[in-house]
Amino acid sequence: MTATAAKSGVHVSEIGSFFAGGHIETLVGQPQRRVQVARNGPDRVVDLNGDYITGQSYVQYIRQVSPQFDAPIMFWHGGAMTGVTWETTPDGRPGWQSFFLNAGFDTYICDAVERGRSGWSPHPEIYDEAPLFRTQNEAWSLFRFGGEGGYVTDPAGRRPYKGLRFPIEQFDTFGSQFVPRWTNHGQLTLNAYFKALERVGPVWLVAHSQGGNFALEAASRHPEYFKGVIVIEPASAPSAEGRACAVPHLFVWGDYIQRSPLWISYRKRADDYADLLVAAGGDVKILDLPAIGFSGNSHLPMMDHNSDEVAAMMLDWIAKTRSS
Amino acid sequence: MTATAAKSGVHVSEIGSFFAGGHIETLVGQPQRRVQVARNGPDRVVDLNGDYITGQSYVQYIRQVSPQFDAPIMFWHGGAMTGVTWETTPDGRPGWQSFFLNAGFDTYICDAVERGRSGWSPHPEIYDEAPLFRTQNEAWSLFRFGGEGGYVTDPAGRRPYKGLRFPIEQFDTFGSQFVPRWTNHGQLTLNAYFKALERVGPVWLVAHSQGGNFALEAASRHPEYFKGVIVIEPASAPSAEGRACAVPHLFVWGDYIQRSPLWISYRKRADDYADLLVAAGGDVKILDLPAIGFSGNSHLPMMDHNSDEVAAMMLDWIAKTRSS
Repeated sequence: MTATAAKSGVHVSEIGSFFAGGHIETLVGQPQRRVQVARNGPDRVVDLNGDYITGQSYVQYIRQVSPQFDAPIMFWHGGAMTGVTWETTPDGRPGWQSFFLNAGFDTYICDAVERGRSGWSPHPEIYDEAPLFRTQNEAWSLFRFGGEGGYVTDPAGRRPYKGLRFPIEQFDTFGSQFVPRWTNHGQLTLNAYFKALERVGPVWLVAHSQGGNFALEAASRHPEYFKGVIVIEPASAPSAEGRACAVPHLFVWGDYIQRSPLWISYRKRADDYADLLVAAGGDVKILDLPAIGFSGNSHLPMMDHNSDEVAAMMLDWIAKTRSS
Repeated sequence: MTATAAKSGVHVSEIGSFFAGGHIETLVGQPQRRVQVARNGPDRVVDLNGDYITGQSYVQYIRQVSPQFDAPIMFWHGGAMTGVTWETTPDGRPGWQSFFLNAGFDTYICDAVERGRSGWSPHPEIYDEAPLFRTQNEAWSLFRFGGEGGYVTDPAGRRPYKGLRFPIEQFDTFGSQFVPRWTNHGQLTLNAYFKALERVGPVWLVAHSQGGNFALEAASRHPEYFKGVIVIEPASAPSAEGRACAVPHLFVWGDYIQRSPLWISYRKRADDYADLLVAAGGDVKILDLPAIGFSGNSHLPMMDHNSDEVAAMMLDWIAKTRSS
C-alpha cells in the first residue's frame, strides 16, 4: 500500500505549526554586556534581564484534503530526541510520518518542552539545573544496537548485535538528531502536551520511550483526549492506572531485551502496568515483535529496516480498535 | 492565487528531513553520576564521556509531484530563531513556506547549527562559550515593533509603533519560537549550510536577518549553489563581494528603520554591499517597502499582515530573474 500511495502523492490542504502551553518568566539583576552578535557586524548591548516565554511545546501538523480517519495521529518522541524521530529514517527511507500520511491520517508531530524547536531557557535562572547530553556510546547500548562497550569511534570497529535490523551503517547520521534534555521537567512537558491535546484531540497517539511514559500518564489522567495510545518501548509507567481503562492501549517491544538489565527492568514496569490495566478491564494488546517471529528489532522500530511492517501492524490495530 | 491554490491543496510526493554537515567530537575526563532520567523510572548511570555529533544543520523538505520551478526554495532563519519563522504566522495565517508551496516550489527549511532540531553540544567542553538568550523586551525594539522601553509584561501597557503591520496582539505567541544561540559559530553554520547546498543546490535562497548575512557571504564564496538570493533585512554584510556578481540579489527592507540607530547602521552596511555588487556589474534590486507605499512593515515581513503581498513581490522578482 505504501509504495503505491507514495507514488501517487498525498493531497495536502495545510502544513503548519503552533506552540502549545508556555508562560512568561521574568529575569532581573543580570549584568549587561557588549557582544558582536552577527558575523561581520558591530557590537551591541546584550541584556538578559526581561521576559522569556518558557514551557511551550512545538507542534507541526500536516492536514490532508481528504483524511481517511476521523482523528489525527499525534507523535511524541523519546528522551534526548525530537520530532525528527518520525521523519526520514537515518538511511533515507520514508519514516512513520510518511507511512501514516499515506494511510490517510492527518499528522501532528510534537517537540517536547525544551527539545528541538520548542526552545529552552537560561539555567540556573529559569530552569533550575543543567541539562544532560547523550553520547553515541550511551545510545549504542541504551537503544540495544549492541552490548556495553560495543561502540567505538571508528565505524569499522563497532560490534552490533547479530541480526540487528537498525541501519547501523548510518549510526553517526542518526546521532545528529540527539538534543540535550532536562530530567526534572516531566510536569512541564505534560502540561504543554495537554494544551496541544486540548486543541487537536481526541487523537491516536504514537509515543516512544520517555514519550511512552508520558503517554501512559496522560491517558490515565485525560482519557478524553485519546482514541487510543500506542507506546513504543515506554521507559517507565505510572504506578496506578487512573482513568486509563477508557483508552485502548497497544504496547510494542523489540528484541534483545533479555541482554540488558536496564531494559528488563523497564519492560517489567510496563508489563506490570499493562497487567493493572487488564485487571481493571482495559483494552490492552502487547505487540512483542520477537514473540511473533520478528527478531532483530532495536529500541527504534520506526527506523529499523522493517519499519513499514511494524507500522502496518499498528495501523491494523487502529483499524480493529476503532471498529470494535 | 494563494487562496485558490490553498483550497485545492498541494500534491506532495515527499516530506522528510536530513542533517547536513557535522562531525564527531570526543569528551574525556567527565565524572559519572546516577540520575533519575525518566519520570517514575529508576536511577541509572549517566556518563558524559564519549562521542558527540556536532556542527550539523537540520533540513526539512517538502517535494511536490509536479513542481512548477526548476529549482527549490531554501529558507535560512535569523538569529535566536529556527525554521519556524517560515511556517504559520503567530496569528495563525499560512506563512511563506505555504505561499511558495502553493506557487509551485519544492521547499527546504533549515535550522542553523545549534538551533532548533539541529541540537547543540555541551559547553565549555565542546562549544567554548555559553549561549545568548533573547528576551521579549529585546525583540520588541530589535524587530522594530516599537521603541526602546515600549515593551512591558502586561500586553495592555505595550506601545507598538503606529501603523505597525506585525500581529502584535500575538507577540507572546511569537516569543515562543526564540531559541538560544552562540555568537562564535559563523563558520560552523556556513560549513553545514554548504553541505546542504551541495546536496540540493542550486536553489532560490530566502534568508532573514542573521541568515541574510550568511546568505550574502555564501553567494560570494559559492555562487554555483544559487539561482538567486533574497535577503530580508540582513543584519550585516561581507566587506568584499567575492564571486557574488554571478548571483542575482534582492534586498527587502521594512519600515521604521530611521527610528533605530542600530538598524540605520545595519542598513548602511547592506546598502554599501549592494553598491559594491552594482559597481562590479551585479544584478541587484532593492525592495524598499515604505518607498513603494507599504508603510508599517517590521523586521519580520513574513509574519506581518501583508506577508502574502510581500511574498508575491518576491515571486515576481524570481519569475523575472529566471527568464532574463
